[in-house]
Amino acid sequence: MDEAKKVKELFKDYSAIIDKRLKNFLAEKPAGYALYGHMAYFMGFADEQLIPTDIYGGKRFRSSLCLMLGEWLGVREEVVSAGLSIELFHNFTLIHDDIVDGDTHRRDRKTVWNVWGVPHAINSGDGQLVMSQQVLMKNENLDAEKNIQVQRFLSEQYLKVIEGQYLDFVLTDAKLGEDGVTEAAYFEMIGRKTAELIAAATKVSGVVAGLGEGQIEALYQYGYNLGLAHQVYDDAISIWGKSKQTGKRELGDILERKKTLPIIFAKEGLVEVERERLINYYDNNEEEGVKEVKEIVSLLDSVGAYEKTVDQMKEFADKAKSSLSDLPFNIEQKNTLCTIVNTLLPDIKKT
Amino acid sequence: MDEAKKVKELFKDYSAIIDKRLKNFLAEKPAGYALYGHMAYFMGFADEQLIPTDIYGGKRFRSSLCLMLGEWLGVREEVVSAGLSIELFHNFTLIHDDIVDGDTHRRDRKTVWNVWGVPHAINSGDGQLVMSQQVLMKNENLDAEKNIQVQRFLSEQYLKVIEGQYLDFVLTDAKLGEDGVTEAAYFEMIGRKTAELIAAATKVSGVVAGLGEGQIEALYQYGYNLGLAHQVYDDAISIWGKSKQTGKRELGDILERKKTLPIIFAKEGLVEVERERLINYYDNNEEEGVKEVKEIVSLLDSVGAYEKTVDQMKEFADKAKSSLSDLPFNIEQKNTLCTIVNTLLPDIKKT
Repeated sequence: MDEAKKVKELFKDYSAIIDKRLKNFLAEKPAGYALYGHMAYFMGFADEQLIPTDIYGGKRFRSSLCLMLGEWLGVREEVVSAGLSIELFHNFTLIHDDIVDGDTHRRDRKTVWNVWGVPHAINSGDGQLVMSQQVLMKNENLDAEKNIQVQRFLSEQYLKVIEGQYLDFVLTDAKLGEDGVTEAAYFEMIGRKTAELIAAATKVSGVVAGLGEGQIEALYQYGYNLGLAHQVYDDAISIWGKSKQTGKRELGDILERKKTLPIIFAKEGLVEVERERLINYYDNNEEEGVKEVKEIVSLLDSVGAYEKTVDQMKEFADKAKSSLSDLPFNIEQKNTLCTIVNTLLPDIKKT
Repeated sequence: MDEAKKVKELFKDYSAIIDKRLKNFLAEKPAGYALYGHMAYFMGFADEQLIPTDIYGGKRFRSSLCLMLGEWLGVREEVVSAGLSIELFHNFTLIHDDIVDGDTHRRDRKTVWNVWGVPHAINSGDGQLVMSQQVLMKNENLDAEKNIQVQRFLSEQYLKVIEGQYLDFVLTDAKLGEDGVTEAAYFEMIGRKTAELIAAATKVSGVVAGLGEGQIEALYQYGYNLGLAHQVYDDAISIWGKSKQTGKRELGDILERKKTLPIIFAKEGLVEVERERLINYYDNNEEEGVKEVKEIVSLLDSVGAYEKTVDQMKEFADKAKSSLSDLPFNIEQKNTLCTIVNTLLPDIKKT
């Protein structure tokens, strides 16, 4: 069994718990408001006609990780609401992202705006954001003091994700040739947009369990570096992977002129004349054809951008793994956490 | 001094407190993120170049009302964070509304999407929604139990507002001729979209002060009916008022084919041949010219829609006033609350 399958198997029970609670939470809402049907559709609980179904609607990766760590720390029931909150928040970000990026499909299904229009999609995301707070207040397993502590932490993390989204727009709007488009700007952006939410999922279990500061920080570092590796992996498969891996259109990041890590590596690594060619392709406002996109990929390959990107993933993966030494888990549990990291390190070009 | 000026004068100190705290809250955020500058712009604290300024950026009506009631109940400091939360939430709804409605201006200034584009405007609203929760957790004047109680109440109200937004889309998308376009559907929509937020502002002061159930309900009823009156007033001035009263384009609601109360009254009150004419104007997908809009207004006037709308406002206003009898306020305070209601009852056609 390959490692990705192992993790899926491992998370099966946790994601089933999350799915059940999400369904129950939606079922409590007033009937006849298709607003909640749109959310159920996105989560894979309903089809376009809002008829109940059971389609793949996301891995529940963040919330499953949160529940698993909570279980190991003896606080599984206490962290479920945090897991649900993080899952709802994550879904909210995806629904709004799809609008902004104009993505018509996700996970091989139409995006919410593509089925019901932009106004409903904005509102559906807004509703899930409110619900991501509301679900925290239904937690009867936590005393009020601890509950406030969890909420304060999560709302700080959530605002960082919004800041990351802001940085993503700035980077997307910038010309590749601008001085501000650097590795540092890229890492600040993905740190906030992606890594802080996964770090929230790992750290919150330690907060709820009342671990010491050092161990809470170790949980945070595990999640944060896992998140960075995860995003760099996403950048890599958008260029060198197949669309069945991403569920999105092939080479979408280049078509949308995203300044992802491989592009920035190429900008920094190419000799001047070729850098100018790359920048010219990227900063040219015309829509690129397939031929231009292929030339960009050749430029990236010529400077070893794939290998540099993989090395960077490995560096983050090692950091995530090395943070495990301080944590109160047994060997088997630590191996599991390493396996989760390893799923991000396949040979993308061969898969 | 007319009543609107009286209320403005009355709220001056409260809105100054809110403005100061909003500015401080924004100032705590990381520098260099124009995300927070966009919020400051919308609130009137910055111009389009994000240079600090002091322009009219909203009445702070909901939060001032919340603070005033809190002061009277001896819990002003304890309710400030709820007031700020409601104000941030309200601003979030306006920023997203402006996108959805395609409104280019509000309060005679460009809307956020019109200055920085739709992605930034969506994200700016999202950020304020997270901050509307975050600000509640900074309240050191409330114990954790009470704090959770306030949060649970406000998040329920906030979700009702999102539901109201959903109902608004449904009503806007419906043809005027459809059976579902009724007074009942209209009141359900404005109840959630508008009245529940004003009711949140009035009720929360009673929750924080620990009033009995009956008095808390009276505060809720005051706010809820004030909110309904307020929305019906808005509907009326969009048709019979001047654009200086609304800060929006004249007859915007008709141009956007909103099914507001006067339109629904006309649909119900016109004789069949004229009802068909109205429905035909409204459900015709071509953009209407000035001539058509004027004919619609004539149809409304022919059936006394203005007078019926004003009567409906008065009914809600009376309900708001009659809920005051149970409340622990002195005569002067009750008179003040009546004055606030009365500001919604000018002769719109003459002002």
